[in-house]
This record gives sequence, structure tokens and C-alpha cells, in this order.
Amino acid sequence: MTTDPLVVFTPSGKRGNFPVGTPILTAARQLGVDLDSVCGGRGICSKCQITPSYGEFPKHGVTATEGALSEWNAVEQRYEDKRGLKAGRRLGCQATVLGDIVIDVPPESQVHRQVVRKAAAARAITMDPATRLYFVEVEEPDMHSPTGDLERLERALKDQWDIPAITADLSLMSKLQPALRKGKWQVTVAVHKSHSGATASVTEIWPGLHEGGLYGLAIDLGSTTIAAHLTDLETGEVTASSGLMNPQIRFGEDLMSRVSYAMMNPGGDKEMTRAVREAIDDLTKGIAEEGNIDPNLIVETVFVCNPVMHHLLLGLDPVELGQAPFALATSQSMSLDARDLDLTTMNDRAQVYILPCIAGHVGADAAAVALSEEPGKSKDLVLIVDVGTNAEILLGDTSRVLACSSPTGPAFEGAQISSGQRAAPGAIERIEIDPATKEPRFRVIGSDIWSNEDGFDAVIATTGITGICGSGIIEAVAELRIAGLLDSSGLLGSAAQTGTERMVPEGRTHSYLIHDATAEGGPRITVTQGDIRAIQLAKSALYAGARLLMDEMKVDKVDRVVLAGAFGAHISTKHAMVLGMIPDAPLENVSSAGNAAGTGARIALCNVAARVEIERVVGQITKVETAIEPKFQEHFVAANAIPHKTDPFPELSKIVSLPDLTFNTGGESDSTSGGRRRRRRG
Amino acid sequence: MTTDPLVVFTPSGKRGNFPVGTPILTAARQLGVDLDSVCGGRGICSKCQITPSYGEFPKHGVTATEGALSEWNAVEQRYEDKRGLKAGRRLGCQATVLGDIVIDVPPESQVHRQVVRKAAAARAITMDPATRLYFVEVEEPDMHSPTGDLERLERALKDQWDIPAITADLSLMSKLQPALRKGKWQVTVAVHKSHSGATASVTEIWPGLHEGGLYGLAIDLGSTTIAAHLTDLETGEVTASSGLMNPQIRFGEDLMSRVSYAMMNPGGDKEMTRAVREAIDDLTKGIAEEGNIDPNLIVETVFVCNPVMHHLLLGLDPVELGQAPFALATSQSMSLDARDLDLTTMNDRAQVYILPCIAGHVGADAAAVALSEEPGKSKDLVLIVDVGTNAEILLGDTSRVLACSSPTGPAFEGAQISSGQRAAPGAIERIEIDPATKEPRFRVIGSDIWSNEDGFDAVIATTGITGICGSGIIEAVAELRIAGLLDSSGLLGSAAQTGTERMVPEGRTHSYLIHDATAEGGPRITVTQGDIRAIQLAKSALYAGARLLMDEMKVDKVDRVVLAGAFGAHISTKHAMVLGMIPDAPLENVSSAGNAAGTGARIALCNVAARVEIERVVGQITKVETAIEPKFQEHFVAANAIPHKTDPFPELSKIVSLPDLTFNTGGESDSTSGGRRRRRRG
Repeated sequence: MTTDPLVVFTPSGKRGNFPVGTPILTAARQLGVDLDSVCGGRGICSKCQITPSYGEFPKHGVTATEGALSEWNAVEQRYEDKRGLKAGRRLGCQATVLGDIVIDVPPESQVHRQVVRKAAAARAITMDPATRLYFVEVEEPDMHSPTGDLERLERALKDQWDIPAITADLSLMSKLQPALRKGKWQVTVAVHKSHSGATASVTEIWPGLHEGGLYGLAIDLGSTTIAAHLTDLETGEVTASSGLMNPQIRFGEDLMSRVSYAMMNPGGDKEMTRAVREAIDDLTKGIAEEGNIDPNLIVETVFVCNPVMHHLLLGLDPVELGQAPFALATSQSMSLDARDLDLTTMNDRAQVYILPCIAGHVGADAAAVALSEEPGKSKDLVLIVDVGTNAEILLGDTSRVLACSSPTGPAFEGAQISSGQRAAPGAIERIEIDPATKEPRFRVIGSDIWSNEDGFDAVIATTGITGICGSGIIEAVAELRIAGLLDSSGLLGSAAQTGTERMVPEGRTHSYLIHDATAEGGPRITVTQGDIRAIQLAKSALYAGARLLMDEMKVDKVDRVVLAGAFGAHISTKHAMVLGMIPDAPLENVSSAGNAAGTGARIALCNVAARVEIERVVGQITKVETAIEPKFQEHFVAANAIPHKTDPFPELSKIVSLPDLTFNTGGESDSTSGGRRRRRRG
Repeated sequence: MTTDPLVVFTPSGKRGNFPVGTPILTAARQLGVDLDSVCGGRGICSKCQITPSYGEFPKHGVTATEGALSEWNAVEQRYEDKRGLKAGRRLGCQATVLGDIVIDVPPESQVHRQVVRKAAAARAITMDPATRLYFVEVEEPDMHSPTGDLERLERALKDQWDIPAITADLSLMSKLQPALRKGKWQVTVAVHKSHSGATASVTEIWPGLHEGGLYGLAIDLGSTTIAAHLTDLETGEVTASSGLMNPQIRFGEDLMSRVSYAMMNPGGDKEMTRAVREAIDDLTKGIAEEGNIDPNLIVETVFVCNPVMHHLLLGLDPVELGQAPFALATSQSMSLDARDLDLTTMNDRAQVYILPCIAGHVGADAAAVALSEEPGKSKDLVLIVDVGTNAEILLGDTSRVLACSSPTGPAFEGAQISSGQRAAPGAIERIEIDPATKEPRFRVIGSDIWSNEDGFDAVIATTGITGICGSGIIEAVAELRIAGLLDSSGLLGSAAQTGTERMVPEGRTHSYLIHDATAEGGPRITVTQGDIRAIQLAKSALYAGARLLMDEMKVDKVDRVVLAGAFGAHISTKHAMVLGMIPDAPLENVSSAGNAAGTGARIALCNVAARVEIERVVGQITKVETAIEPKFQEHFVAANAIPHKTDPFPELSKIVSLPDLTFNTGGESDSTSGGRRRRRRG
């Protein structure tokens, strides 16, 4: 009795015996090994490349001899001549089994290959996009058993790829007959499966084998900027990234002013909708050029955005989002055609997916953060803060996830700050104040050289020193507090109280002079008492939101803090904690997740199961409404002190000692003394 | 022990005992009695009107006393004051059961009321349209359990009407929030259920109770004319009917010339698509005006059309339909949004249904005829002929249904006939020729007076006598044959051969003079030898198609013949049989079905189950292709004689005796003699 040869696949370890002459692709399919093929084993797509390994494999109990696979054949030779195969590679559909063999499936031949994210907390995305390419041979029409070309394409997809009933819109159908005839009844189609799996629609068709790839866009549609990643839907690679300002800024800097614009100007919402859609079209065009691809190859787009941007993108009047009870027109995820949004640059039949909203103040961007950071899968209690004009806050672990939104205002982005500016070259982004001399040193965006180091003058020669960006102002305020120039109530001391001439009087208050460039025609950069107040309001709102979630969760501390958002990526966690932006936690447990919302969008773009997952997760998140909760106001007032009036910061005090002082001479509020009194009690 | 009162419903006969105080609507629902309600029993829609009957009902075993229902209440009084209730009527949701009672549900209170067709073969349509109105009360938004307005509408539809998951497009969603607030959380929605029942979409929304009705269009999109019926989707009544010429005529009179136009002129198909869509928009506007309704109330449209019109309507290049194997882009039924077809006059979200095509030559119009005439349900063998430029022919009974298309050409419509014209005032539509005197008498469209009767001159004073329409030419040719002026080979006799000066020479052939109005500046109306030949070609094609189906069915005769199409409605069945247009059958079994395709469209509009049914039926129809069948040519040649070269017409000969003569003097073909020889043999 002879046994059929043994085929062992790596890295999966799947194995089985197959009759002599079985193609490797067939063996892989029967074992459920993840081996790609677009052409269905016809030797033309080359997606099923494998690497046979020869020799002794004690681990697998196999000895593979040189003749274990069929000889290199004409199909492989043609492919080799035309484009070349990597050394040692074979086409899985051509090489057949002759003896025991070990077959390695390289990552690029796996359909569900994993793409490792570059972000700090590396999490792999398993490639399983909603749209995939399929090569099919379609039966020719027959007068005697008349069926439409579409029906025969449908049958081919069912027989050759096990894809059930398909739909196709009229614009696709008008391409169908010419493509079938040009391709001599062989075509490649892009098929989009709904993530419920219930329906499949053909969104593009090419005669013969299409080798130009397939792309998707992950778009983070922010109030201020629109950022897009062009992603190869086969490899998961980001081919190009691009961003532009949200043109709606001309209707209002922040969301509520845009809602007001819509309320005050009939048709204003339509105007804003048109503006943002045109911008997305421009962005699509630009990113396709940058990625050097035909924009028609973009067949999928995922959006994440806050609720107001969500409504304005969809063409829904956001007016209800501007007033209690902040009712969304719809909170569910949206699956749309790109043309429903008048997006005409990408493929005519591109499919759009918009993540679900959590509530009227907590949008699809927060859902994307939840998808990326997965608080519901965290064993320890994690607080995730996405800092922006509105802060979205998530708190949770495997037991429960809570969410809220808190109106931090734009201070953290450098707005409403006397010397504030957006993060751009010339902006101060890091600052240190010497506790002894009270002298500052700082760095500007675009350089690693500190202001007291050699070469700094050369650095700023072209940009100058133009202002302070969001992360800079946070460091500045925290450093002022550490250096004893700012008391816990948020009052800046006078030159006399602090012993430094950098404290300069300004009306009844004082400012700290960071840099005076007026002699060179530049600005005079200070931190004013007004700046401190703006930062206090913003950080109090953030902290109060987090506290409200902690109350709901019945906890006094969190195990981990994750700072999300572009801003979160640049913030100094130590300074954020000195300021009392976030609850006390061991500093090593405070991390940045980068643009977690954007990452969530990429995940939903590359993996259709993630869409099902986030819809399930969002349904389980408990929304806490800050606007109507009396305790929010209480928390907000208590959080006004730096770092806090009542809450202890034991982890912070292990690494930083904050001077206990007050500059209040009775002329300002009594909050400081009150705060100190309570502090002692706590 | 007391028994709950007995409630008997008529006409259904359903009965049950209900506790005192049960509303009649509730009782009806529990028994499954078909009693309408849009408002769900809130006493505002008045759809649930019922008529209680009092007295002795031995048939039902009930004695109903005066106090068997609750007193007339304030809600009913308000309705009575506002719009009036018919005498004896009550609102089913307000009147409650106090004692035994008989309740009649009038037809207008039934959801699934039956609408009797006016056509000859009256068949009732059960009302069950895809789109219906639902009144719902939607929960107000709550900050503490945030959901979108759409999700709360969905829940209301599920709870109050048992409608599962809904979808809504962006344009509907933008109306949602204002409508809910204007209606104080009470709205009426139009919900379109896909006929598979799988999905439901909200296509329109009104604040509060919408009482303006809901309409649909049944459109018969012909090569020459476009006819539409505006139908009330609640009552099934045809509110208005309208038609216009198909503007594509300027690109080609017949279908194949339009296909050629598309082939010869790049973009020509798009041009024709635009033209027909604009015409449908115009037609929609006109019919809405005629029916005095807002065109936005048109939420459903059903199209029936031949395959070329089908493709041109859908924006698909019809070029493949012009050549073997006549491949359709798609043969399945189509469910579309009206705006996919650029139909913008009707409701923005109106749903379009297009019946399936049977084959590349046998379209959705033939499917509609099958839906209307139901050959597959006929116990006797029925031949259904839809006469037009192409004739669609169906043959079948409960065992099997066959279909083909035959290229009759436009002769039956009066085209290619020397004095031919479209059916319009002034056209001769009926003609008789006295077999003794060979003198004609005739009638023109628009009058019942014959040309030899008093008052005829007054009739034609305004219109004149302008030509012969399709039914007129058929009668003329048949009458010529009966009167002995035309032999069985189709040759007109000379004056000498026939003994009448009405036979006038024309080159080497002869014409029959019907009317000479040249003295009054009018036309000279004759039947020429060329006219006879054109009719012979047309009728031979028709007959050959029917014979081909009979061959496939293995029969020599049919039990019934149904003539469909507008033309079929005007044709004289006797004359059609004299001509040999249709196979021999007892004349009483030859009937006209009127515009059966249009009726099929109306059925599919009013009853969603009919869509499922016709899709099933079409899948079972066997298509016979005439173009490539050698026997078709054989049948065609044999059918050239009048009535036929070989086939006997025993039923015809019972009522008409055709003179056995030949005018062939050796100069014409030998087909006549051949025909006579074979005839004797049969």
C-alpha cells in the first residue's frame, strides 16, 4: 500500500496527503490554507506564489527531495519571462505534488495577510477588505437558453468563487457587455460584499485580468483638517497620505459656530456640505496623484468624524446637534455610494462606510478610537482621551465601556492664547523653566536644538519665533507651576513675589516673558494670566469629563491613560499631569496612541469584520451626558486648581514636587485658600 | 356563566367572541379580518370605517340589538363634523363591542380590496402595492439613551406595524428631523417593501397624518407610443391616463433602425436614452396635472417594454440586441430608484420596477402579457398574440408555456401601406365590400355612420377621409378576398377578371379603389398589389411564429386565440382569420384582451406578489428563437397564401366561404397553383 504524498504548509502548519498531480493551490484550498488567487488557478494572476522547501524537516517529520514538485512548466516560464518570479518561487496553481514537500506561503501570497501598524501600540490589521478582485470566465450567450450577460456573470461568480447573488448598478451594467466581449468572456470584477455578508455588488469590471490593483481611502474628517490615507486594498500598505484644511473653517472656526451658521443662514448647511465634499474630491485627486494611481481604482472609502461633521458630510442639517437633547438624525453606521455624497473623483461606484456615532456629542471619531484602542478588551481600567476642540473620553475595561464628550474649547490647540498659534514651523513646542534662575529655554517646531544651544539662531533664521502651539502652552503653564511662578489657584506671581524680572505687570495681573523679539521686528511672546485662565477652563472640562466617567464606573483612579489625537502625540505626559489635565496615574502608564481615530478608519477600511465589531461595541458603550449632569459642574470647579483642588495626585508627587504657595493677596478670588483648606482635609 | 359577545364580520364570515369594550378594529385584527387603518387605531385616519348591522341574522345565528356597540363618541363626532361619515358608518377603532353584532367591512375599508379591470376578460387585481402609508408615533430623543431619530422611527415602525429593519436614503433623512418635530413626533411615512420582503425603505415622510393619498404609474413604453396610467395606490383606481409619442422615433421608426443609429453614431444610445427619459418626465408632469395631484405623490412606477426600449430606458447600449445571439445585458427584473433613470418629476425617492425580459427578442412587455393573460394557468391551449411592429407570441396551458417573437414589420400599423396612416380621425377603420356589386362601404374613426348612410358627409366634413389605419387595411384585404377580388395567392384581379371598374390598372398589377376624394382635394384611397404583399409578409411572419410554437408543442390546432395590444382591440377577428393571420379556431374562442401589456404593468403596480409570480413564470417560459429556426422560413412561405397554402381552416369555412379562384395568367409566380394543389391533398 502506498500513501499519497504529504504536503505541509508553513507558517500555518496545516498538512494533508494529496494524490500525485494535485496542484499546490488545490491542496491549500482543501486544507483551508490562506493562499491568494485572483484568476482562480489559471496561471495568469501570479497571486498564488509559494516557496517550496527541500531537505530534512524533523519538526514536520518530512523529507522533501528535489523531485517533490512537478517541473517548472510553460505557464511559469511565460510568467518568468514577462515579469520574473523571485528566486525559489513557484506558482501554486502550476506546481503539482509528486512527493512529500514543505510549502511556505509568503506574506504577500496570503489573502488575509497582517499589516503591522506603525503606531506606538503596534496592533496588526488582518487584511479582509469589503472589496476584492475576482477573475472569472463567463459563459457565452446562447440563443436557445437566453439569459442576460449579468446573469451569466452572476453564475460564474457563484460557480468559480462561491459568491451568492450579486447586484450591479446601471453604470456598471453599461460597461458589462463591452468588457465581456473585449476580454473574450474573461473579466476581472471588483466585488463589494456588504459587511453583513447578505449582499454583494459588482462595482468595477475590466476585460481580462486586471493587474492595476485596488485602493481605498481612510479619511479622518476633522473640524479643522481633513486627513486621508490611500491604502492598497490587497497589501494594506499606505501608498500615500495627504491632508488639507477643512474649508468649512470660513463658516466658523469651531463646530458650534458652524451649527449657528446653519441656523442663521437658510441653506447654510447645504453650503457647508458642498464645501466639504468638494474638498474631499480635491483631496482624492491630490492623493491619487501622489500615489501615482488612477483615482478610478479607489473603490472604498471609510470616514470617521464628529457628529456635526458627520451630518454636514451627509447633507443633514446639524441644527439639532446644537441644542439639547442633541438628537442625531441617525446614529447607525452608514453604507453609501460615493456618488450619494457627490464624490466624483474616485470610482463612480466606490462604496463609502461611515462608522456609527455613539451619541449627539460623541461621534464616529470616538467610535474609531474605540475600534483602534479597544478599551472593552482591556483587562486594566483604561482612560482614553482624544484631545481636540471637543475632547472625547472613553473609560473602560472588559466589564464595561463609558463615553462622554467634554467642551474643552480650542485653547489646547493654541487658539484663544495670547501668543498661541497652530503647530507650524516657528512655533514654540517645548519649554523648560529653570526652577532656580526662572529662566526659560525652548525649542521650535522643525528643530531639535534648544534656544540656549549653539546653532539655534541659524534654526530660526528663516522661520523666526512666531508663537506657542498647543503642546508648548501646556508645557509652559506646567513649567511655571513647577518653577514656583504660578500658584495652585492658577495665579501668576509678581516680579517681587517670584524674584524674577521675567514676570512683568500687565494691568492688575502679571505675565511671564518667554522671548522678546520686538527688537528684530518679531513678537513678544508671553504667558498671560488670561492664557492661564483659558488653559484652566480647558483642562478642567477635560478632567471633569474623565471624573464623571470614573464616578459612573465607581472608581477613584484609573490604571492607564491613553492620549489620542495628533495633539496627544505631541503632548508631554508629565506636563499634562502637572496641569491636572488627566487623572493621576503612574507616568509609565500614560501613553500616546497617535491619531487613533485615523487608525480606526484604516482598520475599518482593511477589515470588514471590524465594521461588524465596532457596530456591536458602540451598541454596548454607555453614553454619559456631561451637559446636563450637575456633578459635571462640581467636578469642573474643583478641577480649576493646578493640578486639582481636592483630588490627590500621589503618582505625580513621586516624580515632581510642586511648590505649595499662593500669590493671592486677597484681591483675587478665594478659591485658592478654599482649595488649600480642602486639600489638607483630603 | 356569561359568554363574551359574538362579533361576526361580513363579507369574510369571520367570527369570534370578544370581551365587552373591545374595539371593532382590535377584534378584526385578532380574527385576521381585512380592515384598513393607517393611524393604527388613533381615530384620525378614518380608514377603518365599518357598518354595523342590527336585527335578526339567522344565517349567522345572531340577534344584534341597538345597544350592541358603544355610543357614538367624541372622536367620531369630530370626524363627522369635519368631513362627514356615510350614514350608518362607524369608526372601527372607536366603536367597542357591548353585545352580539354583525359588522360589515365595506370594500373601501379593506386593505386588500379587489379592483375589477374594465378590460374584456375581467380579472380582479387584489390591492397589495409595494408602497404603503403608515402613521406612527415616534419616541422623543433622550440624552440619556442616545439614538438617532431614524433609529427611533425604525423602532416605532417595528413596534406599531411590525415592519422590520428599514433603510432611508440621504434625501429622506434630511427631511426626517424637521418632519418629526413639526408633527410633534407623529408622522406618516411611505414605506416601500422589496417584493422579496427582505428590505423596507422609507421613501417619504409627512408631519402628522398624511391624507393626500399615494400614487403609482403603470407605463407601457412602446417603440411608437408611451402610455401611462396614474393609479391610486390605496384604491387601485386609475385617476388619469395619458400617452405621448416616443421621441426616439426621430432616431428611427422601428427598433432595428434605432439599434443601427446607436451603432453608427457614437453616443447615439445616450441621446436616445435622454430623449425617452425626458419624455417620461413630461408624461409624468402631464398626467399629474390631469389627475390634479402633486407629482411628488407618485412613489411607484412600473415599466413594461420590449428589450430594445428596456436597454435604452436603462441607459444600456442596445447594440448586442441587433445581432445574434441577441444577448441582453440583463434579463432579470429591475428594482431601481427613479432618479437612477433621471426621472425627476415624480417623487425623488420613487421606486421603479421593470418586469423581467424573456429573451433578447421577447421583452418585459411579453412578460406583462403573460402576467395579465396567465397562459400557464389556462386549462385549454391558448395562443396569445401581441400585435405590433414585432409580434410577441405566447402559446401554452398548465403544462407548459412557449414564447417567441416574430418580425411582422409595421404593415399592421398602417405603415408601408400606400394609403396607410396611423389610427386617427379621418382614417378608414372598418370596410365591407358587397360580394355581388363589389362596391365598398366604410366607416372612419370617430363615427359609427357608414359611408352609404345619411349623415356621413357631415361626419367627414371636418376630418375628411385621409387614409386607412391598420385594422382598416386588414378588413379591406379580407373583404377583397371574400368578395372574389383577390385570389388565394394574394393577386388582385383586373376589371375584366372581376367585372368591376373599381379594379384599376397600375403598371402590370391592379388596385382596388375605395374612395376618390381628389375632386375635393383629398386623397385617392386604394388597396394596391404592393399593399397586399406587405400585409402578406406581415401575416405570414405572425402565422409562422405561431406555427413554430405549435410544432414545439406538438399540436396542430389551438383551443383559444387572444389578440393583445391596442391593435388587437380594434381588429375584426373574422377578418384576421380570413387573412390567415392566426391559426384556425372557433370564432367565439378568438378574443381581444386589449392592452394586455399595460394591464400587466398595472397588476405589478398594484400587487407586489404579482412581481414574484411573473419572475417565477418567466423562468419557466420556454423561448423559441425564430431567427435561426429553418422551419420558420418554411412556415413563412406556406403562410403567404390567403388564408394559407396548406393548412386547412375548418372553423373558418363554417362561417365564411372563400371563392376558389386564381387571377394568375402565368405572368406571376406559381405559388398559387401550388397552394391549391396541396390544399386539395390536405
